[in-house]
Amino acid sequence: MEQSNSSSKLHRNAIQVQEAQAIIQSHVQLGDCEHVDLSEAKGRYLAEDIMAPHPYPHFRRSGMDGFAIISGDTAGSSTENPVWLEVVDEIPAGSLPSVALVPGTVSRIMTGAKVPDEADAVIMFEMTETVVNQGRTTIQVKREIEAGKNVTPVGLELREGDLILEKGTFLSTGEISVLATFGVHQVSVFKRPTVAIFSTGSELLGVEEAIQDGKIRNSNTYMLASQVRDAGGDPIILDAIQDDLQIAKQRVEEAFHFYDIVVTTGGVSVGDFDIMADLVRGDEVTMLFNKVTMRPGSVTTAAVKEGKLLFALSGNPGACFVGFELFVRPALGLMQGSKQPFLTELTAVLGRSYEKINNFTRFVRGSLSIVDAQLVATPASLDESNVMITIKDSDCLIVVPPSSGVLNAGDKVKILRLSGSSI
Amino acid sequence: MEQSNSSSKLHRNAIQVQEAQAIIQSHVQLGDCEHVDLSEAKGRYLAEDIMAPHPYPHFRRSGMDGFAIISGDTAGSSTENPVWLEVVDEIPAGSLPSVALVPGTVSRIMTGAKVPDEADAVIMFEMTETVVNQGRTTIQVKREIEAGKNVTPVGLELREGDLILEKGTFLSTGEISVLATFGVHQVSVFKRPTVAIFSTGSELLGVEEAIQDGKIRNSNTYMLASQVRDAGGDPIILDAIQDDLQIAKQRVEEAFHFYDIVVTTGGVSVGDFDIMADLVRGDEVTMLFNKVTMRPGSVTTAAVKEGKLLFALSGNPGACFVGFELFVRPALGLMQGSKQPFLTELTAVLGRSYEKINNFTRFVRGSLSIVDAQLVATPASLDESNVMITIKDSDCLIVVPPSSGVLNAGDKVKILRLSGSSI
Repeated sequence: MEQSNSSSKLHRNAIQVQEAQAIIQSHVQLGDCEHVDLSEAKGRYLAEDIMAPHPYPHFRRSGMDGFAIISGDTAGSSTENPVWLEVVDEIPAGSLPSVALVPGTVSRIMTGAKVPDEADAVIMFEMTETVVNQGRTTIQVKREIEAGKNVTPVGLELREGDLILEKGTFLSTGEISVLATFGVHQVSVFKRPTVAIFSTGSELLGVEEAIQDGKIRNSNTYMLASQVRDAGGDPIILDAIQDDLQIAKQRVEEAFHFYDIVVTTGGVSVGDFDIMADLVRGDEVTMLFNKVTMRPGSVTTAAVKEGKLLFALSGNPGACFVGFELFVRPALGLMQGSKQPFLTELTAVLGRSYEKINNFTRFVRGSLSIVDAQLVATPASLDESNVMITIKDSDCLIVVPPSSGVLNAGDKVKILRLSGSSI
Repeated sequence: MEQSNSSSKLHRNAIQVQEAQAIIQSHVQLGDCEHVDLSEAKGRYLAEDIMAPHPYPHFRRSGMDGFAIISGDTAGSSTENPVWLEVVDEIPAGSLPSVALVPGTVSRIMTGAKVPDEADAVIMFEMTETVVNQGRTTIQVKREIEAGKNVTPVGLELREGDLILEKGTFLSTGEISVLATFGVHQVSVFKRPTVAIFSTGSELLGVEEAIQDGKIRNSNTYMLASQVRDAGGDPIILDAIQDDLQIAKQRVEEAFHFYDIVVTTGGVSVGDFDIMADLVRGDEVTMLFNKVTMRPGSVTTAAVKEGKLLFALSGNPGACFVGFELFVRPALGLMQGSKQPFLTELTAVLGRSYEKINNFTRFVRGSLSIVDAQLVATPASLDESNVMITIKDSDCLIVVPPSSGVLNAGDKVKILRLSGSSI
């Protein structure tokens, strides 16, 4: 009796990374929305278009501390022939003019204050000399001031009804600031997807446990939790799944009930003790793919159950990391309406030769630097899929196409920028 | 009676940006530490050096699903002359070998499992054929396997006692992961500095208030709160300070008592209604500088009281933003032990000409892109200091030196990368 092992026990039909990403994209369901106070909106994705409720600025604003003037009054003035103008009002920021200007008169005005309707320019305080004489204050102006000088017109930045921020926009400092400016103190944002994280495999020790021969600590769940947070999700680390198919099925079932998405790490290679491979062959879930033409992480598996996604990532830290970045991060972004859910692809120059050749596309962890305005990507010195230490120094994944031959320093390469990149 | 206004009423001795930063640096006090669980450590700065408590990996680890072998057994084997080896053990990940290998025997082994001491290589499962006959399992190997193949040696990534992470390291995904791997489930981190944020000036409306002629909403406090969070601090927005020196003094006094650092926005220009300028001339605080040779934000002011820093930033949104990034962000970083508290300086190519000429260094908001591996910085179309809208589209500050003349598209420029940059 002869039994062949030259093909794996589970049929795996490898698909391209982009194909796998498209499948994920077609199965993602947009998440629910919630209203939050603006002070809590940082790091969330907008769930509505925001239009300007009024122009900005909404009044003609002085750009300087100085004097609001009728520019025509300065026609012909020079150092030799200065003009004298009478100060008839004082307008602090936040106040309104109290005197209508007539030719020959000016208003003292502060930066940001409303320019009187009759004035068409502001002259800088430092460009004038003030004389107080018998209760009358006059200023001397020694140059011509053109109309419009230091006056910000109504609607310069935005007109009423202009789109300020589009649905799906990630809210960061600048966006928060513009919303505050327009009085948008509550916004509709997408809920943070809840992500159940399981590790599988009895080789795993808890992070608090003493080290044991042959066993490693369960670090991938911490790594994944951090990646989930970076992607705007809310991670929930659940107890590791041991190598028992029935218990695994039951626990994944429960996770699907309570959380928006399920991520497992470990147990997806072709070994005899892999649980996830069996699990996604059952009736409970629909397998989307179970092999991708990539290194590391070729056995990355995705499945769907009643609209909820399951990702079974490799147990190797490097492969788990890459699998998350390529598939789970985009899913979390899409659930939150993100317009740019995928890692940004850029062209860089290779900082050091890369000689490993593969039949699959390889995603090599690397660091980024700018050398004389050029983006340089340097492969990590240890890039095996089970190497964990270089993840912390990685700014990007260098995309090495299959059978590309040796890549030399200076060659142009595609890179995917990671979210924590220092460049 | 004649009174000259050609110099400002408050003496301001302008210093260079780097000089101002050095002064801040010399007055920053390193913050206190606290112990946090690893799951809460993301985004914090490490307050201790972390050494590896054991080598990593700490056992000889299989990099493949396959068979642990004595490589010498495969000497001379080929397709024509395959060698047959007997399978005597099965080692799942997390388990220990139970049989000592002798020449001619192998152990079935899973990825990540401990390689038996007698074996010096692992052959991939897919490279073998298995035959089961009368209870004996043998594999056929058709090539020579070199010693060390698919075996990760002890300490490949880190040896015991190696420095894993240095004090002052920012903890992100990779760092969290490595700490989990070594069982460091609690770490000492620097406390988040608490930052009191005041706006000043009666022109400000609350964000919830309806718009009024001549008044703008208090958006800078929201902007600053977001910047503080990005810099690792804990923002506390306090009620705006009205234009009353005594009340302002009292409230700043209180803020110094309760918080680690005080930031104000508004009231620092040379107008008649500026409060902060008066405040920092009092006995209560020591003024560090009150003018910097930069645009926007030249009137940025810093002071110190009993070791705590006060920053009085401009009320113009653009100037306030830049003042924070150049001075407050580094202070917050230094308080948390950061090794790189300042914005990263890079060289880029200018994407569009920039023609504004100034006697001070100008920090122009810009966007970044990578075009054919080159870093391109494009100035914002609206970059006046009181323009708020383009802050959200900014990836960098382009550093335009004083009197540099017109900068042309394609010129090399220095840029400071902002934390929310898409590149």
